[in-house]
Amino acid sequence: MTITITAFERAPDRGRGMARDMPVRWALEELGLPYEVRLVSFEEMKEPAHRALQPFGQIPTYEDGEVALFESGAILLHLAERHPGLLPEDPRARARAIAWMFAALVTVEPIFVQREVSILTERDRPWHAARLPLVEDRIRGRLADLSARLGAAEWLEGAFSAGDLLMVSALRRLARSGLAEERPNLAAYVARAEARPAFARAFAAQLAAYDAQASKA
Amino acid sequence: MTITITAFERAPDRGRGMARDMPVRWALEELGLPYEVRLVSFEEMKEPAHRALQPFGQIPTYEDGEVALFESGAILLHLAERHPGLLPEDPRARARAIAWMFAALVTVEPIFVQREVSILTERDRPWHAARLPLVEDRIRGRLADLSARLGAAEWLEGAFSAGDLLMVSALRRLARSGLAEERPNLAAYVARAEARPAFARAFAAQLAAYDAQASKA
Repeated sequence: MTITITAFERAPDRGRGMARDMPVRWALEELGLPYEVRLVSFEEMKEPAHRALQPFGQIPTYEDGEVALFESGAILLHLAERHPGLLPEDPRARARAIAWMFAALVTVEPIFVQREVSILTERDRPWHAARLPLVEDRIRGRLADLSARLGAAEWLEGAFSAGDLLMVSALRRLARSGLAEERPNLAAYVARAEARPAFARAFAAQLAAYDAQASKA
Repeated sequence: MTITITAFERAPDRGRGMARDMPVRWALEELGLPYEVRLVSFEEMKEPAHRALQPFGQIPTYEDGEVALFESGAILLHLAERHPGLLPEDPRARARAIAWMFAALVTVEPIFVQREVSILTERDRPWHAARLPLVEDRIRGRLADLSARLGAAEWLEGAFSAGDLLMVSALRRLARSGLAEERPNLAAYVARAEARPAFARAFAAQLAAYDAQASKA
């Protein structure tokens, strides 16, 4: 069984590990599973062959010869159900960790992504400078809630789980904005996760893929 | 085992079933599970007692005496793992249905919610009229992708699943905008789901809760 995922041929973040293949790479490294990566261009992503795997023309996708999946959350859940290491065994704790997976992807990350979308697509609009602070205030509200819940704990609930992996991945998308740093316990939480060997391996792999493509240019 | 969920004391949508308790009510009705509802005010939602259940001060929450959960997706998954009716038994089909749950909540609904947030919070800003069409164009892009994938099928993949339940719940949030109606197969998909007896029971229950509160005012 060979696991194949897809990633951007040219990462828009220049290898800073903020594209959505990163959480899947990280999960595979946490679980010790080998995988292959098929790089797709922005043009290929919108073509029928890729859309058969990913209806919205995005990355990542996951194929293991038995099942083809899309959506990072679904891929992580699928992997975590089959291999120990990313979800607790106790059913109650497992359900709680899954709640944090959804919280990261549904309640936290989309608010962060709005900031990126504003900067990418509305930077030249006359309202951009006045509107960005509103977007950032919404982000600060979510960060305050998350910071209050995390408190002095190492991880969101008990041991590191797929919920932490996705929450840290969401927080990393604020990089360079300085917003996460306004909450020292969140900045420490991100640093703690980035210090995991599996994170380092995943980060190095996506950076190497970016560098290899950049050197072809 | 008594299941208790939370919902808004005064639904901002006036009982049109677009608040996030609706998908959970609908799932419980599909599974034939009785449940109780605790209504919480906007003030109560932000207090420590509620935040202990929902760190972001939102609804719904789920308690069954064994586990307390938040996040609609996690609640639906928890229920669907324990009771037949919302996820296929075949592991491959089950993983695909879960991918659609994440797609609805992560890739589709947040783009629709941005339109609501713009209208609610930026209606009086000078840029609102110029910016709303940009937001609606992003929505149209997602709807085009979803419409192309659904095609002439009844449901997203095989039988009705929690993926359809959440995708239809997302599409219903476009109500009155006319955007979903631009794609006749999506409008028919929503109508097909709304015709399910479980949907009708859930809708009636949330409307009754709204009416009971409104009559107290």
